[in-house]
Amino acid sequence: MEAKTLQDLADHVGGRVVGDPSLRINEASTLDKAGPEEITFLSNPKYEPQVKTTKASAVIVAKELDSPAALLVVEDPYYAFMQIVVLLHGHRDHPQVGISPQAQIDSTALLGPDCHINQGVTICQNVKMGKNCYIYPGVFIGPHAEIGDGCIFYPNVVIYDGTKIGSRVIIQSNASVGQDGFGFATHKGQHHKIPQIGRVILEDDVEIGAGCAIERGTLDDTVIGRGSKIGDLVAIGHGTKIGPGCLLVPQVGIAGSAVIGSYVVMGGQVGVVGHIKIGNMVKIAAKSGVINSVPDGAVIGGTPAIDVTKAKRAYALIECLPEMRKKLKELDRRISKLTDTDE
Amino acid sequence: MEAKTLQDLADHVGGRVVGDPSLRINEASTLDKAGPEEITFLSNPKYEPQVKTTKASAVIVAKELDSPAALLVVEDPYYAFMQIVVLLHGHRDHPQVGISPQAQIDSTALLGPDCHINQGVTICQNVKMGKNCYIYPGVFIGPHAEIGDGCIFYPNVVIYDGTKIGSRVIIQSNASVGQDGFGFATHKGQHHKIPQIGRVILEDDVEIGAGCAIERGTLDDTVIGRGSKIGDLVAIGHGTKIGPGCLLVPQVGIAGSAVIGSYVVMGGQVGVVGHIKIGNMVKIAAKSGVINSVPDGAVIGGTPAIDVTKAKRAYALIECLPEMRKKLKELDRRISKLTDTDE
Amino acid sequence: MEAKTLQDLADHVGGRVVGDPSLRINEASTLDKAGPEEITFLSNPKYEPQVKTTKASAVIVAKELDSPAALLVVEDPYYAFMQIVVLLHGHRDHPQVGISPQAQIDSTALLGPDCHINQGVTICQNVKMGKNCYIYPGVFIGPHAEIGDGCIFYPNVVIYDGTKIGSRVIIQSNASVGQDGFGFATHKGQHHKIPQIGRVILEDDVEIGAGCAIERGTLDDTVIGRGSKIGDLVAIGHGTKIGPGCLLVPQVGIAGSAVIGSYVVMGGQVGVVGHIKIGNMVKIAAKSGVINSVPDGAVIGGTPAIDVTKAKRAYALIECLPEMRKKLKELDRRISKLTDTDE
Repeated sequence: MEAKTLQDLADHVGGRVVGDPSLRINEASTLDKAGPEEITFLSNPKYEPQVKTTKASAVIVAKELDSPAALLVVEDPYYAFMQIVVLLHGHRDHPQVGISPQAQIDSTALLGPDCHINQGVTICQNVKMGKNCYIYPGVFIGPHAEIGDGCIFYPNVVIYDGTKIGSRVIIQSNASVGQDGFGFATHKGQHHKIPQIGRVILEDDVEIGAGCAIERGTLDDTVIGRGSKIGDLVAIGHGTKIGPGCLLVPQVGIAGSAVIGSYVVMGGQVGVVGHIKIGNMVKIAAKSGVINSVPDGAVIGGTPAIDVTKAKRAYALIECLPEMRKKLKELDRRISKLTDTDE
Repeated sequence: MEAKTLQDLADHVGGRVVGDPSLRINEASTLDKAGPEEITFLSNPKYEPQVKTTKASAVIVAKELDSPAALLVVEDPYYAFMQIVVLLHGHRDHPQVGISPQAQIDSTALLGPDCHINQGVTICQNVKMGKNCYIYPGVFIGPHAEIGDGCIFYPNVVIYDGTKIGSRVIIQSNASVGQDGFGFATHKGQHHKIPQIGRVILEDDVEIGAGCAIERGTLDDTVIGRGSKIGDLVAIGHGTKIGPGCLLVPQVGIAGSAVIGSYVVMGGQVGVVGHIKIGNMVKIAAKSGVINSVPDGAVIGGTPAIDVTKAKRAYALIECLPEMRKKLKELDRRISKLTDTDE
Repeated sequence: MEAKTLQDLADHVGGRVVGDPSLRINEASTLDKAGPEEITFLSNPKYEPQVKTTKASAVIVAKELDSPAALLVVEDPYYAFMQIVVLLHGHRDHPQVGISPQAQIDSTALLGPDCHINQGVTICQNVKMGKNCYIYPGVFIGPHAEIGDGCIFYPNVVIYDGTKIGSRVIIQSNASVGQDGFGFATHKGQHHKIPQIGRVILEDDVEIGAGCAIERGTLDDTVIGRGSKIGDLVAIGHGTKIGPGCLLVPQVGIAGSAVIGSYVVMGGQVGVVGHIKIGNMVKIAAKSGVINSVPDGAVIGGTPAIDVTKAKRAYALIECLPEMRKKLKELDRRISKLTDTDE
């Protein structure tokens, strides 16, 4: 966490300084909390008034604005801010432990160079792991799992047998990947467990949140595409395919055999039923329930989910139902009266 | 995973071959993916057209159909398929580890023969465990827990003190069973924790999904009945009783002191409030919110949950609320005009 | 679990006995299950009829009632009951293990006196822990975490680096505290991870349920206020502030940067979007979706959440939508007929 000048930061992100380029910047902070020697950013226009009153030394902006702070003008302020947070603060440091003698590593497992395996980790037979992986205590990696380079598995993550994981995949604590799908054949009142012989495949640059549960497939693999990011406590059903670049916010649930396109965004607690297809670039508002396939680019909300603009108007009117019902009765009476009069 | 002939499979499930009984079958697969030497099945009539184009060597069906593949005709195709998947692929093999010296087993614990206890497992005082149990790394079994025969606990499962578990119970990774119920007595602005002296009882053949949280009872036990299957990330409240044969799909939540009958099916993200009674054979659509007791055999959906046929029609009309409201205003105007005319 | 007389219990809670004060009481139980030598309580008036038929030796009540049992009259029966359960049954006993040689404790960690650290626990560099803490197997405590006195962390809890935890905090099994917030800067089709440099702060007397996921802040800390109790499988977003004395029931989800007041109660599966403000003493019905800020004292329900009394009436009318629509068409026809007649 070494101090930089504002010009250093501008050079780093390819931006332009308005104000004193020699200002020292130690830390990144929020618009309302930032103080001297701190840099902040404006991305959501709703917070623009705060730029005028900020105590920050510098603000990252997309266009010049009135401010007591110096400005760092860039094309994409949030992206520049990310780069600066990385520069000033860096990503988490992991304790360098090498291969702990208290890890249990099967003799048939193949580990690349520069991996760190903490105590209490279990790596089963025929696991293949690339280089530069960091495995925290209490992680379990089942037989025949394959893992790329530069992965980070936080404490108590469980990877079931046969799971295939790309490079630079991050899995937060207590997540389960590859547990049995919810598959039973019910016969004469008994639910018989169907062996789940599909795998889970996590492609490169996927991140899985804390406490997630990603089921293996019954026959087909469950797949999470390259660069998709999954929030905490998300449940993904067996055989579901999620395309690249998706963002699934915490507590989303997707049932089995759904097909999700690329760059789909789902808000918190969204539920998607099984065996449907969600197109590319679809956006789904928080807490929606999706029961039908959705074309590319749709923006939907509500349960059942419909076009989000319609949904906002329609769901807000539920509140008016008692009044609407009363009105209906009133109109009925008035018409009846008219009819009586007429007859 | 030894190859069989189609006749072998027919004999195994008590079915009839239409086509070449000597066909070799190596694997089970899906209708659209299956290829030569693979068998698949038709259970959902909606996929019937695919039977005509499948590249599978054989298809399990309930009645004869036109198909390039051989047919295996049985009464219950899904059940037969399950049996064949077990025959061809088997259930998961667990590494045979015996009792690991790196497990921490209290001297007062009693373990039956042929149990496998991995490293990093903790078994506390007075635990009783039957035979043939398989306990993965990182599992914790609290004092006085009782466990039957043939149970499988996946990595990092936590069983609290006094939990009673039947035979052939499977608990997926990172699940918690028997943690304290959410019980506090609020007095003068402080929430005082009430000791939760009830237990959790999981009867024979129960399966608990990854990351589930099954609370112990405050005074009464929490019970999950024989053969019930619970999906991932399900939360069960304190003192709730779930009958035998239920299927609770991922992310269901049931509050405390609810009483759920037998063979109840709940879709994903269903919520059930506490202190109500759900009858036998009730089916609840995904994402429904159940706030009142429900009689035997009901099929319900929506929040608040109502008869599912009504719910489908009614909830689909929320979309029409803006138009209905507009219509109401129009009718009002038209009636007023008529009235004016009349007066 | 030593037997007491009813008078002992009355003295303990400051209540008055109606009946035989020398009755022996061994256990606490529910109104319908309690038998001889057991005490129960009446708090919800709906169960008053059961007081007349209970087989309990004594019932804790707020006012004298007809009952075959002796009565213990107190101001707040539920609070008195809590005190009596503690007296008769106590809180959970934790096996006294001292500092296990199979725990991995960094040499720079500072632990107060009388802590119990079980096998398989990892305590990283510069952790500070007060006295009388009980840390179950498989817990991970990251670098620079600070923990007060008398905390209990159940098995496989994961505390990330820098988390600050007060005194008497209880964290149930498999919960994650301080994992990275869901924060990415999307640029040219790639989601770039933003280092999450905020912390999680759990104030004194907080309890966190099993399997919870409490994200650290991006820049600002995530805070859970003094005495707040969080149920199982709850997800709290980055930078969210929760005031003191809140009760969040299982499966609640709160997005990032929300500000929740004091003594807020949220029912199961409630969702709250980010960047809004929930006032003090707000109550939110189960499964509600809150998308706007809410003033102090509001009681709300539904998705979108509105005043709960309105919501109950309004949401119950969704069921009537088909009938209302039919009525609209009928009225339309009748008016048209009248108009035709008139013209």
